[in-house]
Amino acid sequence: MTRDLIVTVNPGSSTIKMGLFRAEDVPLRIGSATIDFRGAPFALRAEFGGERHVHPLAAADRGDMVALLREALGQMARHVDLDRTAIIGNRVVHGGDLFAGPAPIGDEVFARIRDFERLAPLHQPQCVQLIEAIRRLRPEVMQSASFDTAFHMMQEPIERRYAIPRHLHDQGLKRYGFHGLSYAWIARRLAELGAGGARVVAAHLGSGASLCAMSGGLSRASSMGFSTLEGIPMATRPGSVDPGLLLHLLGPGGWSLGEVERMLYHESGLLGLSGISADSRELLASTRPEAAEAIEVFTRRIAGEVARLGSVLGGIDVLVFTAGIGENQPQIRAAVAERLAWLGVELDAAANAGNALRIGAEGARIDTLVIPTDEEQIIAEEALAILRGAGPGGPGRG
Amino acid sequence: MTRDLIVTVNPGSSTIKMGLFRAEDVPLRIGSATIDFRGAPFALRAEFGGERHVHPLAAADRGDMVALLREALGQMARHVDLDRTAIIGNRVVHGGDLFAGPAPIGDEVFARIRDFERLAPLHQPQCVQLIEAIRRLRPEVMQSASFDTAFHMMQEPIERRYAIPRHLHDQGLKRYGFHGLSYAWIARRLAELGAGGARVVAAHLGSGASLCAMSGGLSRASSMGFSTLEGIPMATRPGSVDPGLLLHLLGPGGWSLGEVERMLYHESGLLGLSGISADSRELLASTRPEAAEAIEVFTRRIAGEVARLGSVLGGIDVLVFTAGIGENQPQIRAAVAERLAWLGVELDAAANAGNALRIGAEGARIDTLVIPTDEEQIIAEEALAILRGAGPGGPGRG
Repeated sequence: MTRDLIVTVNPGSSTIKMGLFRAEDVPLRIGSATIDFRGAPFALRAEFGGERHVHPLAAADRGDMVALLREALGQMARHVDLDRTAIIGNRVVHGGDLFAGPAPIGDEVFARIRDFERLAPLHQPQCVQLIEAIRRLRPEVMQSASFDTAFHMMQEPIERRYAIPRHLHDQGLKRYGFHGLSYAWIARRLAELGAGGARVVAAHLGSGASLCAMSGGLSRASSMGFSTLEGIPMATRPGSVDPGLLLHLLGPGGWSLGEVERMLYHESGLLGLSGISADSRELLASTRPEAAEAIEVFTRRIAGEVARLGSVLGGIDVLVFTAGIGENQPQIRAAVAERLAWLGVELDAAANAGNALRIGAEGARIDTLVIPTDEEQIIAEEALAILRGAGPGGPGRG
Repeated sequence: MTRDLIVTVNPGSSTIKMGLFRAEDVPLRIGSATIDFRGAPFALRAEFGGERHVHPLAAADRGDMVALLREALGQMARHVDLDRTAIIGNRVVHGGDLFAGPAPIGDEVFARIRDFERLAPLHQPQCVQLIEAIRRLRPEVMQSASFDTAFHMMQEPIERRYAIPRHLHDQGLKRYGFHGLSYAWIARRLAELGAGGARVVAAHLGSGASLCAMSGGLSRASSMGFSTLEGIPMATRPGSVDPGLLLHLLGPGGWSLGEVERMLYHESGLLGLSGISADSRELLASTRPEAAEAIEVFTRRIAGEVARLGSVLGGIDVLVFTAGIGENQPQIRAAVAERLAWLGVELDAAANAGNALRIGAEGARIDTLVIPTDEEQIIAEEALAILRGAGPGGPGRG
């Protein structure tokens, strides 16, 4: 039988997104399926050949990944012959300093991926569970890992240093940067658009959000560093906060570490600022002053980070918006742009309202683009490269 | 007897600096005395009428502020008649949200100052001890407080928000900003120089270091926020670090809160980056790569923060360097300026090498100035205003 399918697996906080691609020279998407944990019962939302299907799932325990995946794959097999799967490509949050590109998941690579659980204790374990469950259910199928950190490995080492004792840096307490699969896609699209040599600041604005400074198609700096908390405010994460504020909360008679962690990961950002919602669409639709304040802090911080990253690049030629908010919310883009007028950002109001590719005003010093991201396409391509033994790979292809 | 003396008291990490001023329309400095804790025995270094004196101190316990001050004031009384003291002006680190200007220290104001110990547990207690010791030793002399936070009270409230839950903001977990006495002096000097209306970023670079965005002579944003840790790297403090990095250090089997606090306040910054010294002069003189790395991180972070603050102001007309490093280290200024060339910062090499007032190149889009700061002059003027009952004051002049 021809094994000509690539399956991508992309775990998130409330979903696991899977993509199905045909393994052509450039992988071609033929379907998708999302395990959705947001309702009860959990559901599998699938789309194949233009048809949408929703399958309620019997499995009800997020911790039992084997049962969940077995059922989900069983449902998917009603629409597509999964026995044709050649490789399963996993999005993995953290690759530490080891993986500058995708890697085939043998025992040694898998052990390394597990090691990095200590660097990303809230996100990496889900990646590990998924890889493990797939190994159990489809032991004969090759798996590859595509790392969110890999794209940033090209940053200058100095850019990755915090001003902390050197021995801590040497132990791995340094900037990694995330959303690398998204930025890799953006870099590709910019090259296709003839802007491969430009100095670019890209703003990936989703429920997680970060910015990346790129030049020559490579990452030069990012707003996220050691963890997915740093940088700009997100749906429920605060971005950077004064370290002294954490010392204060944790001080005598104060909060437990778990309480602080929950606050930082789940109760801050747009949700914390507004006290209303983590969803910027709801905040834009609200007339309450707290909603406006949250949007104002969010857009100010994005603009400030764009300017900061400009100082890394020595100037900005192109500003890119991507991901859910970046692609679909003209008001957010307009508010950010307004605060960057001094640098030469100026929008064409109609183009911005229509989420066009080119939303910058004619003649503006900085080009502003909206580029839909496609992390799963990158995962599929990296998986295909691994399959063909042509990937840059990491160490230990064991 | 005429009481025509103003004494200023400015506590630091390794010294207590005192200034003596004659209470004229503009207070005129007539002498200074510094209690120096850096050697054994402690010493009082004094200068009156152009003559320098060094007095070893018998008091050897920093905790016994009454004994220390009694001895120091006794030595000073050999050079100047301290009975003529009309008011003692204290530099106080934290004024919370209460003090937008100087205040006479009655019982109620003193109680408020003590309250803020919980917001600045490493710095405020020393201020409190000094005020208390002076009350004991010179109960008949009026005291005033000049707050490092007061100058920043004019920032827009939105600028002071972290993206954390609103109830925490309402409890005081917000940006305060520090070095306000220094920035108040800079704002004054800029007005005298005809740049009172300019959009200014001022970089106060001492062993503590911060930046402030000003326009119309008022603070608009600052790099330090809730505590004196945030912002750019300092001699031994890291500036901003990923909150996730602290969670990691404090996690299971990790560091105690006290260990993290010590690392952040005393082992980071230039010292931590270099592993060599907290003093940028030593690092500039060193040929070791770690020294160059520390300077590189320091200057990159300053440049990035200047650009970020530019987005708050909507542009920058004037860049100011001040404090020990800012006033005296041309190489640091040159490295920062080089990274800001894209914004229009350009230095005149000779003027920069000579620490001149105007170090910007002719025709540069942004003016760059070196302005020696004088926090003690501001404290003396604020004390005089209080003395005359004309100060803006805070609440509770009890």
